[in-house]
Amino acid sequence: MKSDLQSSTARPPRELCPVAYQDFVSSEPFHLELGGVLPGLTLRYETYGTLLPDKSNAVLVPHALSGDHHVAGKYTPQDVKSGWWDVFVGPGKAIDTDRFFVIGINCIGGCRGSTGPLSIDPRTGQPFGGFFPEITLSDIVRAQRLVIQHLGIKKLHAVVGGSMGGMQSLLWCADYPADVGRIAILAAGLSQSPMAIALNAVSRACVESDPNYRGGHYKPGEGPDTGLSVGRMLAHISYLSSAAFDQKFGRVRVDGAKPGEPVYWQVESYLHHQGAAFVKRFDANSWLRITRAVDRFDLTARAAAGKLFQPNGPDVLAVSFSSDWLYPVNEMRMLVAAATAVGVNATYHEVITDAGHDGFLLPDTGLSVRLHAFLG
Amino acid sequence: MKSDLQSSTARPPRELCPVAYQDFVSSEPFHLELGGVLPGLTLRYETYGTLLPDKSNAVLVPHALSGDHHVAGKYTPQDVKSGWWDVFVGPGKAIDTDRFFVIGINCIGGCRGSTGPLSIDPRTGQPFGGFFPEITLSDIVRAQRLVIQHLGIKKLHAVVGGSMGGMQSLLWCADYPADVGRIAILAAGLSQSPMAIALNAVSRACVESDPNYRGGHYKPGEGPDTGLSVGRMLAHISYLSSAAFDQKFGRVRVDGAKPGEPVYWQVESYLHHQGAAFVKRFDANSWLRITRAVDRFDLTARAAAGKLFQPNGPDVLAVSFSSDWLYPVNEMRMLVAAATAVGVNATYHEVITDAGHDGFLLPDTGLSVRLHAFLG
Repeated sequence: MKSDLQSSTARPPRELCPVAYQDFVSSEPFHLELGGVLPGLTLRYETYGTLLPDKSNAVLVPHALSGDHHVAGKYTPQDVKSGWWDVFVGPGKAIDTDRFFVIGINCIGGCRGSTGPLSIDPRTGQPFGGFFPEITLSDIVRAQRLVIQHLGIKKLHAVVGGSMGGMQSLLWCADYPADVGRIAILAAGLSQSPMAIALNAVSRACVESDPNYRGGHYKPGEGPDTGLSVGRMLAHISYLSSAAFDQKFGRVRVDGAKPGEPVYWQVESYLHHQGAAFVKRFDANSWLRITRAVDRFDLTARAAAGKLFQPNGPDVLAVSFSSDWLYPVNEMRMLVAAATAVGVNATYHEVITDAGHDGFLLPDTGLSVRLHAFLG
Repeated sequence: MKSDLQSSTARPPRELCPVAYQDFVSSEPFHLELGGVLPGLTLRYETYGTLLPDKSNAVLVPHALSGDHHVAGKYTPQDVKSGWWDVFVGPGKAIDTDRFFVIGINCIGGCRGSTGPLSIDPRTGQPFGGFFPEITLSDIVRAQRLVIQHLGIKKLHAVVGGSMGGMQSLLWCADYPADVGRIAILAAGLSQSPMAIALNAVSRACVESDPNYRGGHYKPGEGPDTGLSVGRMLAHISYLSSAAFDQKFGRVRVDGAKPGEPVYWQVESYLHHQGAAFVKRFDANSWLRITRAVDRFDLTARAAAGKLFQPNGPDVLAVSFSSDWLYPVNEMRMLVAAATAVGVNATYHEVITDAGHDGFLLPDTGLSVRLHAFLG
């Protein structure tokens, strides 16, 4: 894939390969915002590029709901897929790993290496499973900060995140304004809207109504795959736009499908495929914990009280995507207005695209140029 | 409830009570568009008002996906609810039953009295259940026409429908243009869009993945209630708008709910309630048959070929609702452009509302005045 920046840069982009993950491990109890305690923490992370001796060039890229620490590059040349934001992160790319030290960290509550429901609870010797406590995005960010401190980084050059990652950018600004120079928020808003909660609620109901869910107390490999798959199908719809559905699938039928068959339309086939692929890499209890954490995200009161953006706080780049109906453009405009009102250097940009919410993942929207300029 | 028309009318609206349904029964085989055959037909219908001796004042109101023949009035004064469009249909209302003879008919494939999956297949003595054949909206309209002919009506004064009912209005225009004087299409379009198909597909996946579904071959009372409930929760989201969710629910929590409980947000509680209420009155096999029929709806090719609207065909009133993201306004504009292009007397009106797709069910949007004027 080529980013829109690449045609205007002198250095052709090169592939990050091999990359490798590392684990940060702490045996200290980690106290959660809602009252739970994790007896210890493992945080899986990857880095790309070289940290300068003064450690001033670190860029954290928090991931979205179903993402992970594998932001860019390949583990081996044989890997079919690169990291989830490889289009933007790499040598010569918008977030240029020839200049920046880029960090991806799997969030707590996740299922890709960091402490989450699949992890062993050392107190019982069993996976946390349904007993994994409730988390917030503030918890996720506070845990990230342990890795940043572990790396000896006192101040991040930037935090750049899309969707749930953008919410984390905002929480860095809210909770640790002195620790970050600039934040980019892509395809997110000041809060999770009631309709976005509704969509997550139905997605959770799909999981919770699967008989294999058993209140979260399923055995590994015997979980509510069907419910999680259907829940993911729904979530996937919200990441696209009506125009994107028109362009990708139209009203085209599956070859040979007969009326009444469960998979009749191309779009139906695509969604079933997405759902089936998702359950191979995601855990249902993680899905519930993380969607609930996202639903709790609400910085509107703090923004109104002047406790989110402050004159000496991080610079802000907010980018919306015109056809994103999950996090509509007006929420981001309000966010930038709130930042600007208190003297923050804040910029709003609306990408005109039919791609919907997933627009932040795609090349050729003009986002690369904006991000590159913002990072300085 | 008061409609916006009522303040400007000389006759105060009166309640239709009691109303009663009737059954049209045919023992003739009914051949379906996709090849199936129903060995006979029962069509449950209701009428309100008085048919003129020349039978010129009949207005058919086809229902939406989950509606039925009970359009207006109450069966007994003790009924808590009136028919689903009572705000618009009754003496002194927009569709004035002092002047018009209004007809509501439960669609075939439904579960409210007309021949559908819950009906007994006379060939087996058992309910059709999962063996009920696939239907189309054209089949539904063709069956309606049998009732209209049974009532001795040669030409309907009007067909007025919202959502799936609006698609049926269009099919009357397409298939029987000489049989109807005018059609009103509310909150619909020329076709079911790929994203609308996607939403129905996930809703169906909810049903089909419920272990009680058994390929449709469940016993009455032992059906996939959980899956149908969750599928309906999803559908319900698509009937509202983000602004409507903000206004109705905001980010308000259920009193006393603890983080991690399955029903934590007011909006979550509302959706669960809607789902649970729905399964008490609807059959899962009907849901599958009717959503698939809606997904098949596509008159774009016929419109382009000049075989939908014709110069001497019915007058057209098309009404969109500004926040309806299921059937967006641009589709209706195209529809009216197609009608106007061939000389049809066609009017487009956009109701500015936060109510979303369900706007056509609500009073006080200005729709009453438009409908009243259109019916003449």
